[in-house]
Amino acid sequence: MWKLFRPILFVCGLLLLAMALLMSIVAVFAWIRLDPETSIFVVSASVTAIAGLVLVIPTRGARFNLVARQLYLLTSASWFTISLAGALPLFFSHFELTFTDAVFEAVSGITTTGSTVLSGLEHLPASLLLWRSILQWLGGLGVIGMAVSILPFLQVGGMRLFQTESSDWSDKSMPRIQNLARFLLATYTALTVACALAYWANGMNLFDAINHAMTTVSTGGYATDDRSMGRFDLNILWVSIVFTLLGATPFTMIIAFLRRPELSLLKNSQWLALLGIVAAISGVLGSWLWSQSYYTSFEAYTQATFNLVSVITTTGYASADYTTWGHFSIVLFFLVMFIGGCSGSTSGGLKVFRFQLGYLFMRNQFRKLVHPQGMFVTQYNNKVVTDDIVLSAVAFTFLFFICLAVFTLILGLLGLDLVTALSASATALTNVGPGLGPIIGPAGNFSSLQDAAKWLLSFAMILGRLELMTVMVLFAPVFWRD
Amino acid sequence: MWKLFRPILFVCGLLLLAMALLMSIVAVFAWIRLDPETSIFVVSASVTAIAGLVLVIPTRGARFNLVARQLYLLTSASWFTISLAGALPLFFSHFELTFTDAVFEAVSGITTTGSTVLSGLEHLPASLLLWRSILQWLGGLGVIGMAVSILPFLQVGGMRLFQTESSDWSDKSMPRIQNLARFLLATYTALTVACALAYWANGMNLFDAINHAMTTVSTGGYATDDRSMGRFDLNILWVSIVFTLLGATPFTMIIAFLRRPELSLLKNSQWLALLGIVAAISGVLGSWLWSQSYYTSFEAYTQATFNLVSVITTTGYASADYTTWGHFSIVLFFLVMFIGGCSGSTSGGLKVFRFQLGYLFMRNQFRKLVHPQGMFVTQYNNKVVTDDIVLSAVAFTFLFFICLAVFTLILGLLGLDLVTALSASATALTNVGPGLGPIIGPAGNFSSLQDAAKWLLSFAMILGRLELMTVMVLFAPVFWRD
Repeated sequence: MWKLFRPILFVCGLLLLAMALLMSIVAVFAWIRLDPETSIFVVSASVTAIAGLVLVIPTRGARFNLVARQLYLLTSASWFTISLAGALPLFFSHFELTFTDAVFEAVSGITTTGSTVLSGLEHLPASLLLWRSILQWLGGLGVIGMAVSILPFLQVGGMRLFQTESSDWSDKSMPRIQNLARFLLATYTALTVACALAYWANGMNLFDAINHAMTTVSTGGYATDDRSMGRFDLNILWVSIVFTLLGATPFTMIIAFLRRPELSLLKNSQWLALLGIVAAISGVLGSWLWSQSYYTSFEAYTQATFNLVSVITTTGYASADYTTWGHFSIVLFFLVMFIGGCSGSTSGGLKVFRFQLGYLFMRNQFRKLVHPQGMFVTQYNNKVVTDDIVLSAVAFTFLFFICLAVFTLILGLLGLDLVTALSASATALTNVGPGLGPIIGPAGNFSSLQDAAKWLLSFAMILGRLELMTVMVLFAPVFWRD
Repeated sequence: MWKLFRPILFVCGLLLLAMALLMSIVAVFAWIRLDPETSIFVVSASVTAIAGLVLVIPTRGARFNLVARQLYLLTSASWFTISLAGALPLFFSHFELTFTDAVFEAVSGITTTGSTVLSGLEHLPASLLLWRSILQWLGGLGVIGMAVSILPFLQVGGMRLFQTESSDWSDKSMPRIQNLARFLLATYTALTVACALAYWANGMNLFDAINHAMTTVSTGGYATDDRSMGRFDLNILWVSIVFTLLGATPFTMIIAFLRRPELSLLKNSQWLALLGIVAAISGVLGSWLWSQSYYTSFEAYTQATFNLVSVITTTGYASADYTTWGHFSIVLFFLVMFIGGCSGSTSGGLKVFRFQLGYLFMRNQFRKLVHPQGMFVTQYNNKVVTDDIVLSAVAFTFLFFICLAVFTLILGLLGLDLVTALSASATALTNVGPGLGPIIGPAGNFSSLQDAAKWLLSFAMILGRLELMTVMVLFAPVFWRD
């Protein structure tokens, strides 16, 4: 057991030390701005650093053998650890958040979900707002890193499909992993800076621009004001549309394009499908909003596109309470919640490639129905896809709906109505952010839920973020058998 | 084309002649009871008989080669034909139903769904009530016949799993198909008679007993009174619980047990799982109803079990408006709608075996996650299940949720709210009957929906009844290519 856990504890310790460093940076920022929460960040950083050292010192020199079991444990343990550390400044703050609320907010941040228990965000100290944004930015980075480095090698939800893709773009001369990490960090940072500049140039103040850039590129959705994006002009909404879509783009594709800017590199069928879905659905909703005279034409298409892209990419900003746009809009927003972005991006949800694999499978199945003796090969992005990858991807969606049912049922038992229970479970599992209905809709927040519901949803957010099976395998008896 | 369609038109013609015969029987029944609708059934029978002859005469002597294409066409065409014929007496009746309403009611009957557009059932002429019950009884028989004879040989939704099972119980000395049909009809009729006697003995009048027996054994759910089963005593509810559960039991299992009454024959894992699910969920809801003082203890468990069994087996009777039992009850009834009964029974829904295959796959997947080099075999009912059957079954649930989303979206576009649109789509696809919400909930009915919504839901009912792919393949271009 010690041999199994030692390297995991070591990495968790290192992560805690990194978190302590980030907290120290925010402490310095707070100190410069004479922020009332400065001491909070000093205390949090100290506690986190001590916890980190307690884990690192006795486990130094641990060896990884990259056993599958260790990778699973490591993945779950590191998200759990970072969530707890991330909750500290919120818990210690003068806002007197309960421990439950602090953890919920941190988990919602680090999983880039964006559901919040806080209201009156505009009155929050700048340091705390910055901390929330940093959590999302960090979470987004973690997800991409996990998606390109760990998940393809685990047999999780059809992600093995991307096993080769992530090695396609690295030259054989350079050490692969380091190379990958370096390009990822550089691209992600560059995107964030570009997004911040674009927001700033379009009229946001610098602080808001930086915060929103961090929560845009990570498709997180935390805002610095209760009105979310509703207080900004339409041009800022378009900046957000572009950068959330980039956040939902496979990062390997972005990196490949940046290194060799050829248009052919953008011919990624998952990405093209995402753009197609967004354009089609936004067109329909925009036309509907315009025809129903909710908005003038340009505004109708902007509001439709912004809010739909925000939900489809699992960001969760809102520029208006779209639940007041009539029944059709509510139905539409409920359904698009499940789509999600591309794999290998910062967004959650079922993800576009699973729908594509499902469609390809159906098409082959139809062919087989008509020609029972025929042999049909499933091709995706010009590569042959084996049956077990399709099965793994399709089974993921099945498992997703089972989880959705279980979480909805428990929330129902806790007294929530059907729409709230169902949309809360969906928004947590897909890492979108807002739910539906008067309580947790885009105009509400999660503060009034019971503690039990908040813990349940925190678990659901991590479960969804780690593609379900990565966490669930830890509860399987076979995992712990020797 | 003529060669493809000729035998199909021939069988549809035969079915119409059979329907005309049934209508004539109801006409005689109406004539004896001096029913005002007697002439309606004479007219309907004549029209149907003429249509049948028009189809049969020019296509006589057609040959079946049992090509997959013909089986698909035949399946869809026969349900479509019977639905249209079944709508005639309703359309011609003095109730002035629109053509849309008549077709909706007939489709809901023949698919054993049980959604209704009629109110004031207790004032309907006995002949029409009987006709509705006959439609459901006939639909139930058709579904079992289809499930044991056609579906296992088509590659639809994992039903191939039961290819061998249906041949297990027939002696090799007898011609298989005839034997199958005979035992099926005998068992189904015997069950119906037993059910009618049980209802009668427990206090129903004979007419109600016969009608309810036909809609119980077929898990259809049409009642003869707007209060559905709410006007009967608790002992009648328990009779209904027993016989709807028998309707949701694999009929091959019932037949095997009747021929050789050994307890080991009841060790069918799908059936045992259904009983387990029903017992567990009814226990929870019953305890909850009792603890919340909705009912006294025995009544609480009876009401819980009756209404849950009715929805799980996709029957759709109601003995109370369970949507007034609080949020938890609504959430629970929404979720159990999807479960369905066993394959090879009269019930719809996703069906228990698909959940079991999904679970078995997950368990193997977990094993593989931990031991990537290991080989694991999926076993179900002591038989090895190949990967493509699991994939087919799991893909069915994926396709089901895609269909659910599409129907919900269109109903939303037609102006229905989320709960109504979602539950209407679900109740149609699973062939349950009542939906949720004030409009189509157990206390409401479907009459106020737009015509477009009724046509859409009629299509959804047939789609669900024929296991989706059987119908959808007809829309695939590959189906029509030579």
